[in-house]
Amino acid sequence: MNAATMSDSSNVAHGPKSEIYEALTSIRLIDPHSHINPHSPASKTLADVLGYHYYTELAHSAGMPKSHIEDKAIGPKELVERLVGGLQALENTAQYSWLIEICRTFFGFEEDRLHLNNWEVLYDRSESIMASAQWSETVLDQSNVQAVFLTNDFDDALEGFDTETYIPCLRTDDLVFHLAKPEVRGRLAACTGIELDGSLESLRSSLKQRFEHFVSRGARACAISIPPTFTPTPVGDGRASTALNAVLQQGISADASHQEALSRRVFWTLAELCDEFGLPFDLMIGVNRQVYPEGVFQGQDLYDSRVSLIQYRELFNSFPNVKFPVSVLASVTNQELVSYAWIFPNVITNGHWWYSNTPSFIARDAAARLEAVPQTKQIGYYSDAYKLEFIWPKFDMYRKVLSGVLADQFVSDRGWSIERAVELGRKVLRDNVEEIFPLPKGAQDSSSSEEVSDDADASSFGAESLGVVGVATAVAGVTEVLDFDSSEPAAETNEPVSETTTEESDYLLIDDEPASETSEADLASSELESMDVDALPAEEEVQELGVDDVELLDDSEPSDTSAGLLSETIDDEPLDVGNLLDDDSPSEQITQLRGESSFNPDEDSLQLEADPNTGEFTLPTGDDGGDDEITLSPSDEPSNQDQPARTTDPTAETVEEIEEFDLDFLSDDDDSSKDS
Amino acid sequence: MNAATMSDSSNVAHGPKSEIYEALTSIRLIDPHSHINPHSPASKTLADVLGYHYYTELAHSAGMPKSHIEDKAIGPKELVERLVGGLQALENTAQYSWLIEICRTFFGFEEDRLHLNNWEVLYDRSESIMASAQWSETVLDQSNVQAVFLTNDFDDALEGFDTETYIPCLRTDDLVFHLAKPEVRGRLAACTGIELDGSLESLRSSLKQRFEHFVSRGARACAISIPPTFTPTPVGDGRASTALNAVLQQGISADASHQEALSRRVFWTLAELCDEFGLPFDLMIGVNRQVYPEGVFQGQDLYDSRVSLIQYRELFNSFPNVKFPVSVLASVTNQELVSYAWIFPNVITNGHWWYSNTPSFIARDAAARLEAVPQTKQIGYYSDAYKLEFIWPKFDMYRKVLSGVLADQFVSDRGWSIERAVELGRKVLRDNVEEIFPLPKGAQDSSSSEEVSDDADASSFGAESLGVVGVATAVAGVTEVLDFDSSEPAAETNEPVSETTTEESDYLLIDDEPASETSEADLASSELESMDVDALPAEEEVQELGVDDVELLDDSEPSDTSAGLLSETIDDEPLDVGNLLDDDSPSEQITQLRGESSFNPDEDSLQLEADPNTGEFTLPTGDDGGDDEITLSPSDEPSNQDQPARTTDPTAETVEEIEEFDLDFLSDDDDSSKDS
Amino acid sequence: MNAATMSDSSNVAHGPKSEIYEALTSIRLIDPHSHINPHSPASKTLADVLGYHYYTELAHSAGMPKSHIEDKAIGPKELVERLVGGLQALENTAQYSWLIEICRTFFGFEEDRLHLNNWEVLYDRSESIMASAQWSETVLDQSNVQAVFLTNDFDDALEGFDTETYIPCLRTDDLVFHLAKPEVRGRLAACTGIELDGSLESLRSSLKQRFEHFVSRGARACAISIPPTFTPTPVGDGRASTALNAVLQQGISADASHQEALSRRVFWTLAELCDEFGLPFDLMIGVNRQVYPEGVFQGQDLYDSRVSLIQYRELFNSFPNVKFPVSVLASVTNQELVSYAWIFPNVITNGHWWYSNTPSFIARDAAARLEAVPQTKQIGYYSDAYKLEFIWPKFDMYRKVLSGVLADQFVSDRGWSIERAVELGRKVLRDNVEEIFPLPKGAQDSSSSEEVSDDADASSFGAESLGVVGVATAVAGVTEVLDFDSSEPAAETNEPVSETTTEESDYLLIDDEPASETSEADLASSELESMDVDALPAEEEVQELGVDDVELLDDSEPSDTSAGLLSETIDDEPLDVGNLLDDDSPSEQITQLRGESSFNPDEDSLQLEADPNTGEFTLPTGDDGGDDEITLSPSDEPSNQDQPARTTDPTAETVEEIEEFDLDFLSDDDDSSKDS
Repeated sequence: MNAATMSDSSNVAHGPKSEIYEALTSIRLIDPHSHINPHSPASKTLADVLGYHYYTELAHSAGMPKSHIEDKAIGPKELVERLVGGLQALENTAQYSWLIEICRTFFGFEEDRLHLNNWEVLYDRSESIMASAQWSETVLDQSNVQAVFLTNDFDDALEGFDTETYIPCLRTDDLVFHLAKPEVRGRLAACTGIELDGSLESLRSSLKQRFEHFVSRGARACAISIPPTFTPTPVGDGRASTALNAVLQQGISADASHQEALSRRVFWTLAELCDEFGLPFDLMIGVNRQVYPEGVFQGQDLYDSRVSLIQYRELFNSFPNVKFPVSVLASVTNQELVSYAWIFPNVITNGHWWYSNTPSFIARDAAARLEAVPQTKQIGYYSDAYKLEFIWPKFDMYRKVLSGVLADQFVSDRGWSIERAVELGRKVLRDNVEEIFPLPKGAQDSSSSEEVSDDADASSFGAESLGVVGVATAVAGVTEVLDFDSSEPAAETNEPVSETTTEESDYLLIDDEPASETSEADLASSELESMDVDALPAEEEVQELGVDDVELLDDSEPSDTSAGLLSETIDDEPLDVGNLLDDDSPSEQITQLRGESSFNPDEDSLQLEADPNTGEFTLPTGDDGGDDEITLSPSDEPSNQDQPARTTDPTAETVEEIEEFDLDFLSDDDDSSKDS
Repeated sequence: MNAATMSDSSNVAHGPKSEIYEALTSIRLIDPHSHINPHSPASKTLADVLGYHYYTELAHSAGMPKSHIEDKAIGPKELVERLVGGLQALENTAQYSWLIEICRTFFGFEEDRLHLNNWEVLYDRSESIMASAQWSETVLDQSNVQAVFLTNDFDDALEGFDTETYIPCLRTDDLVFHLAKPEVRGRLAACTGIELDGSLESLRSSLKQRFEHFVSRGARACAISIPPTFTPTPVGDGRASTALNAVLQQGISADASHQEALSRRVFWTLAELCDEFGLPFDLMIGVNRQVYPEGVFQGQDLYDSRVSLIQYRELFNSFPNVKFPVSVLASVTNQELVSYAWIFPNVITNGHWWYSNTPSFIARDAAARLEAVPQTKQIGYYSDAYKLEFIWPKFDMYRKVLSGVLADQFVSDRGWSIERAVELGRKVLRDNVEEIFPLPKGAQDSSSSEEVSDDADASSFGAESLGVVGVATAVAGVTEVLDFDSSEPAAETNEPVSETTTEESDYLLIDDEPASETSEADLASSELESMDVDALPAEEEVQELGVDDVELLDDSEPSDTSAGLLSETIDDEPLDVGNLLDDDSPSEQITQLRGESSFNPDEDSLQLEADPNTGEFTLPTGDDGGDDEITLSPSDEPSNQDQPARTTDPTAETVEEIEEFDLDFLSDDDDSSKDS
Repeated sequence: MNAATMSDSSNVAHGPKSEIYEALTSIRLIDPHSHINPHSPASKTLADVLGYHYYTELAHSAGMPKSHIEDKAIGPKELVERLVGGLQALENTAQYSWLIEICRTFFGFEEDRLHLNNWEVLYDRSESIMASAQWSETVLDQSNVQAVFLTNDFDDALEGFDTETYIPCLRTDDLVFHLAKPEVRGRLAACTGIELDGSLESLRSSLKQRFEHFVSRGARACAISIPPTFTPTPVGDGRASTALNAVLQQGISADASHQEALSRRVFWTLAELCDEFGLPFDLMIGVNRQVYPEGVFQGQDLYDSRVSLIQYRELFNSFPNVKFPVSVLASVTNQELVSYAWIFPNVITNGHWWYSNTPSFIARDAAARLEAVPQTKQIGYYSDAYKLEFIWPKFDMYRKVLSGVLADQFVSDRGWSIERAVELGRKVLRDNVEEIFPLPKGAQDSSSSEEVSDDADASSFGAESLGVVGVATAVAGVTEVLDFDSSEPAAETNEPVSETTTEESDYLLIDDEPASETSEADLASSELESMDVDALPAEEEVQELGVDDVELLDDSEPSDTSAGLLSETIDDEPLDVGNLLDDDSPSEQITQLRGESSFNPDEDSLQLEADPNTGEFTLPTGDDGGDDEITLSPSDEPSNQDQPARTTDPTAETVEEIEEFDLDFLSDDDDSSKDS
């Protein structure tokens, strides 16, 4: 390496960028969005790695016939050989670099390229390595990953795996966009025990039961992917009822306007339930499904970049207490995301999604966020991975880009210290994941015990940040008041499943109030835990904190004040960009809205076999119709003792503040007595 | 600092970037757009600084309740304490860096962060510093700022301040988008003395009277902010008359189509008056008002980035003699702006507006402009500030980015010398402001006398560039001919206010022609002054210039030839992006178009109290209904002697050229005799 | 130069960027898109250089009257003097740097600026240099350019020039968007000998005859520029017939809906013919014509950046065997282009077009492509030049940007060697041009003999890559099967011109099958030649290749299977962005769609005189009505001997693969036997 190379500012080996990068790699990660199958989280052969749709679709794009890849008769080794034969055209891609990094990191590969002369040795060696019974744990450990968010179908039983490592998330594409399909309604009835009878109550009860199920099993987010044409707005009861009945009677033959109205009604109800249950609602905005229907599996979706967050104006205004981590598919939408997150307390920037998940788009999008969005409102990255091995290289790509942005725009341009830049990096890489998606109550001890890593700093951080939650506000004697009103008390009369309440009692309830109050307590708990003292509190800071009284108020007024105001000042018409999906066959329209999701437990044909109903991989769903039994691990309980005292007595002078207190703002310095 | 750091190309301390930056900081600025209140231009306490909407909206976005910020009972010191308590989440933002830079530059602050342990000392110290009677002048001087453009309500009396330092600009949002409101019409009648009687003549006369008022007091631009849905096109007299009468009778209850037609008619009339009076028309394109109505004051507006300059096609074609400095809200529109400014002589790139005013967007947008738009057609930056203290850090952010672009893309990539790069930087930072918004006649002596700064180069420049205007064309013996036809002679029969004519006689008239001719002379003057010999003429160049005859022709033919041609070849239908603002209540629609503007003279609640009618700060307007008395400062007069000789005798052979001579193109080299 | 400057990472003089740049400059280029006039390819005076629309439109934008530039009375020397007088305002632009680089490279100019004091010496010197009889060849040689693609009007006789150096391309804007004009239909009838009689057969026959004419003369692409509002979808025979008859009867007065339907029908037929003839279909998407009708010649077009490739969904799905090299006008569309090329095998990224052809847009767009699109599917750059002198500076601008991207994002960020980065650069700069637009059969020998340049590497490369085409698949004994089905056999009964068949027999036919089979063979030939062993095969690799049997299958089944499927799953409604072109006069509408094109052989008024019918420069078209005689150069023949053996016998087990084999994918490693 000559001098010119060494002094290159982008060289990772020297200078601020490399120092920052080194520090960031030592941070133990929580991956806030993936498609990992918790029953088979890691790969078994290289076919699981090379079968990732990025390689099949790029190889197909470069000329490999689909039949070369998706013939069921192809064994894993043959599949790898075939794909390796098509990799040359992809060697320039970022996706290819993930592959090589996986091979080098986990399987001792020492070359730069994978080709027909070296693949077989690697295949055999890697197969024996992956055969280890502890392979999943090994990958997590080598990748410095503590936990991984999942993408679960709504009827997932969520059983048989450690929900502290594999954190459930409720994926709702099917409910919003495919409820006209008989099989989707059948799955919903089967898992909830509630048959849709044409009443809006049955619809709401079904959806609510799913929230109870998911929250009781540790779900930390509701999520959905959305086509660019969709604009979420409320649908009145009359219209919704008509639409529901039309769909129940005619299924996918129902008029498109009915299906669309039902989609919006379901979406809005989900947002209400997120509000009620305190779940963040991940919005992944912009995908058109099946644009290239002859493409390989999962390689058929594209987009129209002409989408605007103005379409979400009414949603963001109507649910000030719901956190909306937003992912955008096209980089052109990133500036709007930055601006909306800069203004709306409940809008959070979330990762770099799919077609924007390559270095140059990440670089420009991350830089724009870091310079204008509050640092507490940015989730830097998620892997979106289907197999654990991909978490490392994908996060590493992000870390490198992030290090460059921090080195150039903060250390160099703004004169920050390396330490301060790393602090910001830590916030978007890890801390905010915990703040924005708080751990369910009781998970703290176990999570901290899990964090035995080489990185003492990182391992101790989780416990600190979670152990002192809710305390910070009280530091200087000020009583911070949190808002956790339930905006939807009326519709809960049809609560069907008593065992759900029981589960929640074990898990979440503090007092003896009925289920509808449970979710409020849960929300309160979530908000408590989302508070933080500091990006990286020193041990001394933690010691000094006195656990003071934090008042939790049940402000029983419905919080739809702002929604009401909004309906007067904001019109609900989206920008009319025409009907991209106009089709005589409503079923086709809905098919195109099909959400990406999850995974397939069928290991033998991991990338090759789709769910017959949905065209995508799914976990087997239980047949138990909602009467799941869950066993809480002992570690869930003791941490209750660490919770700060809580009370539901409101004080009159703080009621006004409550309605304003949209997110978990905390004046966490030691002199916040101004608020009292 | 280690070697790797030192060689970092983005490090300001070394290399071309820092050399360029140093040179650029020595340039005395004219800030071409701000919201400074000339009656109270600087801050009185840190509350004026921290009350800037960037801090309140970001703190609110990070979780601080609106009531924490906007309660009228909060005193300035308490407000600062509260906001400081919410700053931690914003420490990453560019806006935060402005704050720290202000504190360090003006108040001796030596830390990197403002927090609850150090704010009070700073508050007290800064308060005593700001108490100086000369504080405004001190800030201007320390910031190396010569003059600041204002944003004045249409009924601003423009009295009581030095219009050479604080340059009036006519903000027209209210007139275009809110004329349906009785209070706006009331204000218009009160300041003009003209009651709208349903005739288009009364409308035009009112508007024209405002132009006369503003121009007579030194206004240098007409300005407006525009929602993404608006497409300016002409409205025929019949349609306009119907619309005006509907609005007069029904106010904000008038049908939305009437209000929209009236908006377009008023806008078009303003463009005609800009043409007549020689005022540039600043277009700030793309804002949606009150997207987040529950947001803090001035923190409610967002946008739909799906806007195109194709919507302005007919406008740009119809007014070839009006300069349109265009600001776009979203960076995605910047390439269109670059392309339109590259093709249309009358389109000028203007600054980096609001949500695009952070370093990474500035960097990419500025780079795209510098490489493709003629250097004479770029206004690099404006502060948009509400208080003088912000001009320095905002311009400094721009200077740093600009230095980086110049160092990387001109010095390094294209082999330019540092000096040449600085020359280009000076052009976009300062020179073009004077060229595009020429100083009113008579302001030259005083402005040059104001320019006593450390930077001899910069201080002498203003006088030079202004002293020789109009002369350059004559250098080589060629007689350049300027076009200053009045395209709207017919509608001026209703001229109401004789005192306006008197004022103008004092100020602008050269001959004894009636008022309508006055504006033509003024336009001619503007065009004269917008000429320049060179980006930075050496003293010798100035000495060598002989003041030759420059002929000013009154080409009485209406100049709407091109507009006429246009109507045949260009259709006036904008891209239909649907009706974002469709609402049963027309008043709501209009409310959403509400323009940003100006300032509030109420110092005690500067950021906290809005105009009851408009929701925004306004200067008190005189009750004198248009019969303002103005007193011209002595400095306005003498410089008349410096004006080159002018004549209104046309020469036949140059008439043809006139129509082509859209902008102030000048072949300013010494061998331009080819044109004769 | 101080140390800081030297270590600047963007400095070309040192480090990886400069090493890569040096290597890239040695690559002999094929320019895949230009407007060169093969009858007068190089400039005769500086007026040809300065008359390029970039200079006239920028000078006009900066203030120079159109009459200053476009008066026919202006001689070339006077024109240069005038334009030089207006250049100062443009000195910052990338376009200006092309000019200076031309003057320095070709005319010994040693200054940085061209001005009124130095232009005349340069003018005289350059005129004498350009007077050389070999000037065109000299420019090509100095520019290291082997061949240049043209832009030919559909009725170009394609005679009188060397089609191996100047490669014909069929530009189809007139046919698609202006067939309503009588003069266009007249030209079509004159060149084809087929009169449009109202039958769709006559339309198709006319178009097909043009393909036969162009392909027989070595055309390698069909091309079109498209406004943002256009969405190509099929038009049924009934609708098309109605539209055609309406247009035939009423011309440009026909209803706009008829003209639009006919446009879509013609476009779709062109795509079918591209499929049949194996021609790539260059799509240049996004231009609005005559947005500024008063602008200078070719300086009137702009755009609406709100266009999406979703509009091309049905096209891309319906023609899996047609390669679509896509250019986008606005950088904002680049990410869609990247994503569509990443997913669709037949979408290829193509160059940096017009308003995106400046360094900062190239940098971001190229980076995004290089990291996510298969390296075989990227055409890095084309010059778009009107005169040969511009190829060098434009490509050089691209090479510099490309070198920077490769150095930063591949060598530095991803640890690639310089050599590997250069290999990727060579692929997008040169190799892919040959792969995607294969040379007509027989052109190989002559092209390699032409490549005698100083650069041994480059000169030998062309021969290698072309000499071994079609061989790679056989390396390891595997028989690759190529798909070249004819999807449109039915419509060919009206084949009119026997002489065309004769020409083709001379040129393309291998067996004695009729003309419709000819094109299949041609396609097969194209696919053969588009194969490649390696990005840069070593001599040894070439030696080791055994020429094995490569089977070419005639899969006689129509390939519209996927189109059929598509019509069920994809709706053909484009995003409705309204009617930008709504106008009472259909002729005006069509006028605005007028395609850019070609050149004018009238040297004396090169930039100043337009075709009276079309407003653009055109080559004189022969009056021979289609009975052209062509003389093939001897060099076309011998290389046939180098072709690998071909057979049209299909083997049953490979038919299935054929339909999947959309592009020329090749598993070119030595162990690809898996496919057999």
